[in-house]
Amino acid sequence: MYKPSKNLLECVRSLFPLEICPWDDYFLRMAQTDFYLNCHYKKASKTYFIRRAPFGGSYAILGGLTLFLRVLNDFVFNDDVIRALKNMGYRDEFCNFLQNLQIRVTVSAINEGMVFFPNEPAVIIEGSLISVRIAEGILTKSLNFPTLAMTKWHRVVEAASPGKTYEFSRRRAQNDIITSLYAHLAGIDISSNAEIRKGADIPISGSMGHEWIQSFGDEFDAFDKWLEINPDRPILLVDTISTLNSGVPNAIKAFNKHRLRIKEAGGIPGIRNDSGDLAYLTIEERLMLNKHGCTDVMIFETNDLDEYSIQSIKQQIFTQTPKFMNPSDILEKIIWACGTNPGTCSDQPSIGGVVKLTSIEDKAVIKIAHDNSIKTSIPGSNRSAHVYTEEGELLCCLIYHKSEKVENTEIAYHPDDKGKNIRLADYKNLVFEKRQIYINNSRETLDNVRERVKNETKNLHWSYKRLNNPHRVKVSLTEKVFNLRKKMIQNNQLMEEK
Amino acid sequence: MYKPSKNLLECVRSLFPLEICPWDDYFLRMAQTDFYLNCHYKKASKTYFIRRAPFGGSYAILGGLTLFLRVLNDFVFNDDVIRALKNMGYRDEFCNFLQNLQIRVTVSAINEGMVFFPNEPAVIIEGSLISVRIAEGILTKSLNFPTLAMTKWHRVVEAASPGKTYEFSRRRAQNDIITSLYAHLAGIDISSNAEIRKGADIPISGSMGHEWIQSFGDEFDAFDKWLEINPDRPILLVDTISTLNSGVPNAIKAFNKHRLRIKEAGGIPGIRNDSGDLAYLTIEERLMLNKHGCTDVMIFETNDLDEYSIQSIKQQIFTQTPKFMNPSDILEKIIWACGTNPGTCSDQPSIGGVVKLTSIEDKAVIKIAHDNSIKTSIPGSNRSAHVYTEEGELLCCLIYHKSEKVENTEIAYHPDDKGKNIRLADYKNLVFEKRQIYINNSRETLDNVRERVKNETKNLHWSYKRLNNPHRVKVSLTEKVFNLRKKMIQNNQLMEEK
Repeated sequence: MYKPSKNLLECVRSLFPLEICPWDDYFLRMAQTDFYLNCHYKKASKTYFIRRAPFGGSYAILGGLTLFLRVLNDFVFNDDVIRALKNMGYRDEFCNFLQNLQIRVTVSAINEGMVFFPNEPAVIIEGSLISVRIAEGILTKSLNFPTLAMTKWHRVVEAASPGKTYEFSRRRAQNDIITSLYAHLAGIDISSNAEIRKGADIPISGSMGHEWIQSFGDEFDAFDKWLEINPDRPILLVDTISTLNSGVPNAIKAFNKHRLRIKEAGGIPGIRNDSGDLAYLTIEERLMLNKHGCTDVMIFETNDLDEYSIQSIKQQIFTQTPKFMNPSDILEKIIWACGTNPGTCSDQPSIGGVVKLTSIEDKAVIKIAHDNSIKTSIPGSNRSAHVYTEEGELLCCLIYHKSEKVENTEIAYHPDDKGKNIRLADYKNLVFEKRQIYINNSRETLDNVRERVKNETKNLHWSYKRLNNPHRVKVSLTEKVFNLRKKMIQNNQLMEEK
Repeated sequence: MYKPSKNLLECVRSLFPLEICPWDDYFLRMAQTDFYLNCHYKKASKTYFIRRAPFGGSYAILGGLTLFLRVLNDFVFNDDVIRALKNMGYRDEFCNFLQNLQIRVTVSAINEGMVFFPNEPAVIIEGSLISVRIAEGILTKSLNFPTLAMTKWHRVVEAASPGKTYEFSRRRAQNDIITSLYAHLAGIDISSNAEIRKGADIPISGSMGHEWIQSFGDEFDAFDKWLEINPDRPILLVDTISTLNSGVPNAIKAFNKHRLRIKEAGGIPGIRNDSGDLAYLTIEERLMLNKHGCTDVMIFETNDLDEYSIQSIKQQIFTQTPKFMNPSDILEKIIWACGTNPGTCSDQPSIGGVVKLTSIEDKAVIKIAHDNSIKTSIPGSNRSAHVYTEEGELLCCLIYHKSEKVENTEIAYHPDDKGKNIRLADYKNLVFEKRQIYINNSRETLDNVRERVKNETKNLHWSYKRLNNPHRVKVSLTEKVFNLRKKMIQNNQLMEEK
């Protein structure tokens, strides 16, 4: 069913079929074992967080919460699921039990499109042990790639800003639908992926590929015929033979021939580079275009772009533009179209997003991992606040137990390094912004999330947003959380004693 | 519907919903323009090939052909699709035309699971220009990630061989269903992904995660209870506190307590490492296990493994095993479980797979790309043969025009380097193995493809299979193809003159 929507939950329902066993097998094997040990109704909580921010950055942007909530809401252990489970060797008694089970967890989370930091609890689920076991399988998959994609595409948007951005990833993406959806949520303007409109009201666009020019045998002829039929999409690809010697001169000739027709159709003319040195070509092209009355022609850049190459091309155009021109006259007429690299998150194609059990029957639990201390978890069902000075500077991200009044915190403890503790008591008028503000909102729209991403990242100091080696936000613990963790590690104690 | 099948086409139909606009928008924009220029019924051909072999290797393994054929077969421009297209601004006249169009192309291809080399035509489609334009959008997406995944997972299988392999990628994969399916086709033994069984009859398995141990607070207790309920899945995760000081001793105690129960249930006991130095731990664990009567306990290795780490862990175990033991006694009892890295093809998350227009009305066409000569295509609707000496050595991959009798070739021309030409006439009894042997076979099974992958790669000389910097197979052209390409480049001629 073709049903492009602006409502995120509707998008997700249209674009992603509901899975029948949305987990790795081991979650349900543990759940079955809980059932036979009769501990499946114990109270439990789990937390989703990332160990490191992706792409060497300082933060991530949450994506996929709506995907998770949708499965949580729509999934039932119906006859088909039960048949599947029996076929996988699950026992009859357990299957009968599941048939009457609804996976029910309370979700405390930051909203989709909000910024979060390493170790910060982004999504917390609480409920019966069996629900919480099963929900993890849904939660990790729902959040991991969307969060990674959202973060990556937002880096592209920031690097290109204020330039417009297109997303062209379908043909080489590992998962083009997730890529196109979360690229849009991150702020990308237009997609090439026609299928995304099956469920999401995202603007799409397309013009010519190399085959268009090849199929005519003559480059000018190909451009001429294209503009004749498509004056409303006057984008000409100029590198089929030789960009500066053939493509651009032919494009200029064609634009000048069809100038009136393009204007009447409301088309915005452009040329597209798809190979060669984009910074060099762009400067030369701009000079040629301007010289021949094509000042209004935009330049589309494609060919393995990502935030790093966009940044360095912009930087070089800025310094290498001939003195008689203003670099911004060139930069303002560039449109950045990215595909494969951000589409696959090529420099880091997975995020270290994990879900860890944090409490059982209100007793905190920990994973210690002496062999690899970065894997030692923070015990307890915690929440986070971003702490701002009265000047609006982000001082730290503070992790506190849900039972604590975070505003009373005197010292923010670094988990492992005393020298990095912060005496909050020394500051006046600190603002504690509690982060887990998600409320069940089925009216979340694509535009809401785009707006939220924009606001959240606008509020981050630029030093946290540098592409390479940015400043890191301190993620600290309250005294209660710090002491509990320290004690449990020292005593090799997996569960809090109460 | 839960319908696990061994038939590949059925798997694909169950696992992947048919898309309603399975293309990037520009393919259909070009098709619409063809229609208005009345050239949509010209004869055309396109070829899928890769520019470079992925992962620094020398070859790729074709995946996704069945995905492509399924869409080709099942897709129709029904009312829903037409409504979508009108909503995207396609014109009524064109939409009316599409309503009566069936995308029809002739497919010449190597089979799913066959090896191919850079520039070798792997899949050729021929038909009316409009069908061929649209089919490209389906073809590229269908082949690219499956081929990449198939090639990657096969590298893992080769590195681990003769060890068994598991695939654990669901929670961090960008596209877990494609990953699990093509991992299986590449030869992986078992998956953790329960959802894959919705459509594919692939064995799955699961045991405990860290949360299992955490939820008991006591490691031995957690192991003990697990084995009590699951003597048929006796895999214990040993790194929650400290692998050698706590995990392994507790596991030994638990195995010895439940020895009989496990044997009766037919379980194969194992411990699982998920952090720390796997080579070191494995040697120490084997010594401890053997000393305490657990010689039958397997060691599962997890934690960011890929073909490179498997190879180097095996190598170190081989050299570092204490003299009184045989390294193969350790190696034979290892099971390799890989997830995130091969699951996302982390060292190269996309393949340079492209489809290029190769002929129009039987006249060859080329993309020249002076700015970037690696992008210069090989013109014409060509096929390939693998040429073997009478001793069975692969001499070259030879690209010939479909009208040629390849067995008559005297010289195999390197596309750009005369010094690398091969005089085939100097050899006696050469064997020309034509590669495009695909015939429409809806009875292709998972097992067929697995078997084909095994045979195809077994026949490759080991020097082509080295993980790093392997020997490269020469991909050559017949005189006819070579001369045509040279002439078209020299004359900046996009289309052959006839």
